[in-house]
Amino acid sequence: MTGGIGFRLKAQDGAARVGELKTAHGRIPTPAFLPVGTAATVKALTVEMLRAAGVGMILCNTYHLMLRPGAERIAALGGLHRFMRWTGPILTDSGGFQVMSLAPLRRISDHGVVFRSHLDGRSHELTPERAVQLQELLDADIAMQLDECVRLPADRSTLQQAVERSLRWAERSLEAFRPRPGYGLFGIVQGGTERDLRRHSACQLTALGFDGYAVGGLAVGEPQEAMFAVLEDTVPLLPPERPRYLMGVGKPLDLLGAIARGIDLFDCVLPTRSGRTGQAFTRYGAINLKNARHADDPRPLDEQSPCPAARNYSRAYLHHLVKSNEILGCILLTWNNVWFYQQLMTDARAAIAAGRFADFAAAFAEQQRRGDLPPWSGPKPCLSMPSAPESG
Amino acid sequence: MTGGIGFRLKAQDGAARVGELKTAHGRIPTPAFLPVGTAATVKALTVEMLRAAGVGMILCNTYHLMLRPGAERIAALGGLHRFMRWTGPILTDSGGFQVMSLAPLRRISDHGVVFRSHLDGRSHELTPERAVQLQELLDADIAMQLDECVRLPADRSTLQQAVERSLRWAERSLEAFRPRPGYGLFGIVQGGTERDLRRHSACQLTALGFDGYAVGGLAVGEPQEAMFAVLEDTVPLLPPERPRYLMGVGKPLDLLGAIARGIDLFDCVLPTRSGRTGQAFTRYGAINLKNARHADDPRPLDEQSPCPAARNYSRAYLHHLVKSNEILGCILLTWNNVWFYQQLMTDARAAIAAGRFADFAAAFAEQQRRGDLPPWSGPKPCLSMPSAPESG
Repeated sequence: MTGGIGFRLKAQDGAARVGELKTAHGRIPTPAFLPVGTAATVKALTVEMLRAAGVGMILCNTYHLMLRPGAERIAALGGLHRFMRWTGPILTDSGGFQVMSLAPLRRISDHGVVFRSHLDGRSHELTPERAVQLQELLDADIAMQLDECVRLPADRSTLQQAVERSLRWAERSLEAFRPRPGYGLFGIVQGGTERDLRRHSACQLTALGFDGYAVGGLAVGEPQEAMFAVLEDTVPLLPPERPRYLMGVGKPLDLLGAIARGIDLFDCVLPTRSGRTGQAFTRYGAINLKNARHADDPRPLDEQSPCPAARNYSRAYLHHLVKSNEILGCILLTWNNVWFYQQLMTDARAAIAAGRFADFAAAFAEQQRRGDLPPWSGPKPCLSMPSAPESG
Repeated sequence: MTGGIGFRLKAQDGAARVGELKTAHGRIPTPAFLPVGTAATVKALTVEMLRAAGVGMILCNTYHLMLRPGAERIAALGGLHRFMRWTGPILTDSGGFQVMSLAPLRRISDHGVVFRSHLDGRSHELTPERAVQLQELLDADIAMQLDECVRLPADRSTLQQAVERSLRWAERSLEAFRPRPGYGLFGIVQGGTERDLRRHSACQLTALGFDGYAVGGLAVGEPQEAMFAVLEDTVPLLPPERPRYLMGVGKPLDLLGAIARGIDLFDCVLPTRSGRTGQAFTRYGAINLKNARHADDPRPLDEQSPCPAARNYSRAYLHHLVKSNEILGCILLTWNNVWFYQQLMTDARAAIAAGRFADFAAAFAEQQRRGDLPPWSGPKPCLSMPSAPESG
C-alpha cells in the first residue's frame, strides 16, 4: 500500500458508507460524484460554477491530456490544478480505456499498448510505468493503474487473459508509483461479468495493496442488475478501510444502487454530456428541453433547487436556448445537472449518517418515477396588444 | 419627439461627450458599448458575467427573435428582460438589416419587406408599423425605426431612393410608436457615403423628432476615414441634447474616433464573435490565442486587468482551450473581450470628463500599436522527472 491517501469511515448503513477522503488538495466527503473534466475543463463550466455546485473532486482524462497539450507541458506549467485553476483534488484515469475506445491502430502486448493519436496520427506508447508517470506529471491526487479493458461480450479466455495481464500491470504500476503524502494509486478490478474472475481479480489486487480499489469494465451496456450483481460479488472482498470507486457510472439510480452496495466514488460524463444535448436532471426525472411542451412554460426547472440554472430561468427560455444551439443553454443545463448530482450525493450522505439510506433511495426512485410536472396550462402566448396589426 | 428616454449631458471635451441615458430599466453612462445578445443571450456569457464586466445595456436582434421564439411568445412570458434575466436596458434593432443580410427571397416595397425565414422558409412581413410593434412586444427600452439598408457600393439613385423610403418609414414608425415613460424610438440616418444625402437624411429626421438618432449603413467594409468623414458631416446636424448611436461599430480605435466625433452609443458583434474564434482584445492589441507562441506561456492575458478571464488563466491554458474547441475557451475569451470594451468606455468617459480625451485616445492607440508582449522566454516544458522512462 502506498498509504498516501487518507480515508476515514464516518458512518455506515448496511453496506452504504459515509467517509472522508484526504488528499494533497483537500478533503472530500464520500460517497462522491466526480464530474469529468476530460481536457482539463469540465465542459461548459467555470471552476467557480463547479465550486458553487458543491463539487469537491473532478476526474481528468490522461489519454486526452497526454496528446494535447501534453503531460510534460502541464507539468512545466505547474501541474493540472494550476493549469485549469481547480484547487480541489483531481483523479486521473490511466488512459487505457480511451486508447481502446478512441485511438486507431492499437497494438497491445504484455509490455503495454502502442497506438496512434486520434488527433494527428502520431504514435505513442502507454505502459503501466508510463501511465503512472503521466499521472504524476499531471499531479493527479489519485492515479489509476493501467488495465486492459475488454469489449463485451467477450469469451472467457479473453477475459481471463485480460484479468491476468491487468494484475501484472497492477504490480508494475505499484512499483512505478512514487509515494508522496496526499497522493495515491488505485487498482482496478476487471473480469467482465464472470463472477469468479472478478473475485480472483479483487483478491489479488487487495493482496498487492493499493490506496483504493476501482471496479472497472462496467456500465458498458449491461443491464443494471448485472452491474449490481458484480458489485455484490466484488465489493465485500475489498478492504473496508479503503475507498471504492465505480468507474464510468452512471444514472442517478445506478449511483444509489451502487452506494447501497458499498461504493464510495463515481465519475461519469452523463450530467455534462446530457447538459450539452438539452437534457436536464431534476427531481422530476430527466427532462428533455428540446420538447415543444416547454416552449411556453414560464416555470423554472425546479423552483426548490438552490442551483441558479434550475431556479432562475424559465423552461421556455431554456427550450429556446437549446433549440437555438446557444452556448448558454449548454452552460445552464450542465450547471443544473452537475449541481443535481452533487445534491444527490449530499442527500445520500445525510441519509446514510441518519441510518435511513434505504428509505431515502426508495423515495428518490419513486419521485423520479412520477416524472415531470404536468404541461403548462396557464396563459399561452397571445398578442398583448390586440389593436396592433398582424403581419402576413 | 416621443420624449420617453431621458438624456443628460454631463461633460464635453471637443465633440466628445459624457452623458447619462435614462430608460425604463435604469440609467447608463455614455459613451456606452452595447454587447450583442442576438437571440436573447450574449453568446457564451451569463447575465452575471455581463454585469461583472460592467455592461449597462445590451442589444438584441428583432429579426432573430421574431422568428424564434417569436415576439408574441416573449411578450406572453413577460418581455425580453424577464425572458433572458437581463434587468438593465435593452435596445433592439428593427430587423431590417438582418432581413437584407440573412433572409432568402426578400421583396421590398414602400409598404415594407416580405421575406422568408432562414430557419424554416416561412413567409413573414416587416413593415415600419410591425417593426415598432415587435419591439414593443419584446419590451425594448429603445426601439429602432425600420430603414432600408442598401448594399454598398450602390449608385446614387439607389441610395437616394433608400434615403427617401427610410424617411417615409421613419414617419410611419413615429406614428406607430406608443409613447411610454422610459421607452424611446430612434431614427436612422442613411445615405451611404454621399455627403449631401447624409445631410438631407439627418435634417429630415431631426425635424421629425426622435428620442435619439442612429447613423446606419456604416462599418460595411468602407475605410475608417470614410466612416469618420460621414460622422463629421452628419453628427453636427443632429440635436445635441439627444443621444447618437453608431450602429454595428466596431474596433476599439473606431470607437474612440467616433466618440471624438460626438457619438454616444455603439454595438458590435466583434468582441463576442472574436471571443468564439480565439481572439482576445487586450491593452497589447488583439491577440490570437490559436498561435503556437502561447502554448507554453504561463503569463495571463493581462495581469493588470480586473477581469478574471484576463488575470487568472495562463495563455497556455487559453491556447489549449481554443485548440481543443472547448466551450470554456469561448466563455473566457468572450468575457475578456466584453470586459475590455466596457473598460475602454469607462476610461473614455473619465478622459472626457477630465478634458483629456485626445491624449487618452492617442495613448491608447500607441499602446495598441506596440503590440503584444515578447514571446515567453522562461522555462520551456521539459520532463520534470528526468529519471522516468520516455515513451515511444
